[in-house]
Amino acid sequence: MSKSLPKRSENYSEWYNELVKRADLAENSAVRGCMVIKPYGYSIWEKMQRALDDMFKETGHTNAYFPLFVPKSLFEAEEKNAEGFAKECAVVTHYRLKNNPDKPGKLMVDPEAKLEEELIVRPTSEAIIWSTYKNWIQSYRDLPLLINQWANVVRWEMRTRLFLRTAEFLWQEGHTAHATREEAIAETEQMLHVYATFAEEFMAVPVIRGKKTANERFAGAEDTYCIEAMMQDGKALQAGTSHFLGQNFAKAFDVKFVSKENKQDYVWGTSWGVSTRLMGALIMAHSDDEGLILPPKLAPIQVVIVPIFKGEEQLNLISETVLPIVAELKKKGISVKFDHSDKQSPGFKFAEYELKGVPIRLAIGARDLANGTVEVARRDTKEKKTYAISEIVETVSNLLEDIQTNIYQRALNFRFENTHQVDTWDEFTKILEENPGFIAAHWDGTPETEEKIKELTKATIRCIPLEAVEEEGKCILTGNPSSKRVIFAKSY
Amino acid sequence: MSKSLPKRSENYSEWYNELVKRADLAENSAVRGCMVIKPYGYSIWEKMQRALDDMFKETGHTNAYFPLFVPKSLFEAEEKNAEGFAKECAVVTHYRLKNNPDKPGKLMVDPEAKLEEELIVRPTSEAIIWSTYKNWIQSYRDLPLLINQWANVVRWEMRTRLFLRTAEFLWQEGHTAHATREEAIAETEQMLHVYATFAEEFMAVPVIRGKKTANERFAGAEDTYCIEAMMQDGKALQAGTSHFLGQNFAKAFDVKFVSKENKQDYVWGTSWGVSTRLMGALIMAHSDDEGLILPPKLAPIQVVIVPIFKGEEQLNLISETVLPIVAELKKKGISVKFDHSDKQSPGFKFAEYELKGVPIRLAIGARDLANGTVEVARRDTKEKKTYAISEIVETVSNLLEDIQTNIYQRALNFRFENTHQVDTWDEFTKILEENPGFIAAHWDGTPETEEKIKELTKATIRCIPLEAVEEEGKCILTGNPSSKRVIFAKSY
Repeated sequence: MSKSLPKRSENYSEWYNELVKRADLAENSAVRGCMVIKPYGYSIWEKMQRALDDMFKETGHTNAYFPLFVPKSLFEAEEKNAEGFAKECAVVTHYRLKNNPDKPGKLMVDPEAKLEEELIVRPTSEAIIWSTYKNWIQSYRDLPLLINQWANVVRWEMRTRLFLRTAEFLWQEGHTAHATREEAIAETEQMLHVYATFAEEFMAVPVIRGKKTANERFAGAEDTYCIEAMMQDGKALQAGTSHFLGQNFAKAFDVKFVSKENKQDYVWGTSWGVSTRLMGALIMAHSDDEGLILPPKLAPIQVVIVPIFKGEEQLNLISETVLPIVAELKKKGISVKFDHSDKQSPGFKFAEYELKGVPIRLAIGARDLANGTVEVARRDTKEKKTYAISEIVETVSNLLEDIQTNIYQRALNFRFENTHQVDTWDEFTKILEENPGFIAAHWDGTPETEEKIKELTKATIRCIPLEAVEEEGKCILTGNPSSKRVIFAKSY
Repeated sequence: MSKSLPKRSENYSEWYNELVKRADLAENSAVRGCMVIKPYGYSIWEKMQRALDDMFKETGHTNAYFPLFVPKSLFEAEEKNAEGFAKECAVVTHYRLKNNPDKPGKLMVDPEAKLEEELIVRPTSEAIIWSTYKNWIQSYRDLPLLINQWANVVRWEMRTRLFLRTAEFLWQEGHTAHATREEAIAETEQMLHVYATFAEEFMAVPVIRGKKTANERFAGAEDTYCIEAMMQDGKALQAGTSHFLGQNFAKAFDVKFVSKENKQDYVWGTSWGVSTRLMGALIMAHSDDEGLILPPKLAPIQVVIVPIFKGEEQLNLISETVLPIVAELKKKGISVKFDHSDKQSPGFKFAEYELKGVPIRLAIGARDLANGTVEVARRDTKEKKTYAISEIVETVSNLLEDIQTNIYQRALNFRFENTHQVDTWDEFTKILEENPGFIAAHWDGTPETEEKIKELTKATIRCIPLEAVEEEGKCILTGNPSSKRVIFAKSY
């Protein structure tokens, strides 16, 4: 490491940007707004994918793959959806390049290879998928149709930030079709809970499960459910959404089925997705001024072993002790790296693995060998302790669980401390200025008030929590009656 | 199944097209030349991905992700590569749609949102990746760089066929950088062998490992290695390629490194890829007129159990026996489906699972129950035998291995029977007309002769086999001297 990271307390945004680059997670590319996900970053994403994919399959979904392109005529079929995404679409208009006669060695778009119909690079796949479902669904026997796709999508964002908002991103998008409204809503809710479980149990990020207001709904949905997480600067990050589409896409694409009762009706739909944005949430929820802090369940390297040695002979002695430990840890399914390279000093390695967020570091030198001990350092608390070599495998195994629990609990405490129940406008604005976080407050339910509050404070309604308690209250802005609190925050 | 498949012997091409659709592998989409990979097809692809990915990681590679788009100026930097792909590029020229003032409810490309520089949808990623490697590589310490990417690519093909040739396809592309020529060649060869091992051990498809002639090289490569498989119509299918790029891309993108000896030099490169085309090879190598035949190692369902029953009571009795078998098979890592639905008759189910290529079918009815037996049917040989219930788990387990070996051996025998060693032009043309297959013949080594033969017969040189024996011979067309035989065939 050439120099230390910016401090969170001084410039949270710079800290994030630098951390993403220095920890080898991602970087900007030669293409405006598109990122390169570097091997270390991608290996975390792969662990997320594997865990999510298992959960999707356990809930009865299968994967499939639909085209990258959406013909314009299909794209515009569901009007609200089209309107919602039209302003950020990459459009393919030609299918060939040719030599540029004016510039030898350069190419140009071949004007003779213009497409009859423009192709939109998918910003989301409802249109192309529902136009396909039309042919797959005739009868109630074809339902439910429970399909997921892992894919890249493109949304032409003007202001981009690595992982949080990029023109191209990776995601999964589930698209399901059902015979009844109730079943589709149940699916929408089930997938929200899958996302919440994943965020909490794997990412160790506590989330609030809620519904979006009408203003913030997915374009083309009847209802959008979301999970919202708090970052260390008190801002909210939407970490996943699950949409109840009603019959909107079925109507736009004429997808009907014959029911058990032999009646024809439009199909009910859902869609749900999480993206590489989760990487941003993971990084910002836990990490510190020294670098990443990764939950053990998603850490590509869970344990690193750094030998402290001079010369090959000492290393050989240490290796004799370390290699059986490595083997035993691996047998327990723990990913471990024994970094015995002599190119870097132990101090350099310590800093590097701290930066990379490796949950546990073991250090072992000649003196440890003589004493039969190992030094164990936790990344999350920076605690160091010495253990007997004989108990090291069990210690590590237990510690990994502790760390997973601890960083979740820490994030939960942080959210608790930074969530304010507020009943007056003065308090509301004061907190937003001085001590941002989540604010649970009453709102009169109108889009106008929501807009006005956003205009005045930049805070938006993140969600109407599913577990919100019914209570009598007054809207913080208008004083009009309200029956439950919603969550306000500034957000990513 | 409404009607039977076309017969291979009558119309091989129609048989393939229909099989792909009826077995729910893939279908054409609303986008010209792009396919939808259906859940069953995708689940086979996922098994391929998993096996390949494990092999890549075992050989030291890590995954990463690079942008979908390549700015035109980068795309054209390596001239031969650019020239090779320019004619089949999808080009993004605009980043926004707007309402069409002349057609309410319709959208149009917003002429004000024209990109300053066109973006090419990647047909392959050398350009974008090498432009990134420039910043990642300074010293020999940064080498080798061993990266793979799983991605979609687009090549605007005019004549497409499901899996074999589609405008968009899924693939993996490895891109590695090395300090020496020798190391890069060793990597190129290693990955060819990884592909060959995968084809033979997982897909049960025997392949010939060889090098392409200069004419058939990847655009921008110094040498292209390939694996070639024989389909049941005797045609060749190129199943994977591995390219030694020399310093071509390093020079085009100015990627230099400082060696151990403190000298600066350009980096040496390789790239290698296999795609969803492998699905085509898998289908065409083994399947028959009743449907797919899948190798057990890639079959999403390895064993299906069909109960033969009337009424719930009988089904319950059968289930009592079957469920423990299901559990035991699963414990052995065997994927098994117990299809006890009463919507279809056993006969319908038999045909359906035959169509889908499930390697083993168990059938069990009241009489079997009384006798303590199960009927076991192999998909590959259509052999049926009765086994005692007590020995069923071991039988199935052994049979899966047998089937994997058997279909490989069958394909190998088929290739052997349809490979001809030929020394005269008459024989050459006669075989190509009457009994197509692989032809091992002498060639004088010139691109002109190769072109001429292609013109006259439509046969191309598939490869110069790595294990070709040195022998004196004469070119079948020109009679000029040749030192080894090459493989000619008509191809996909």
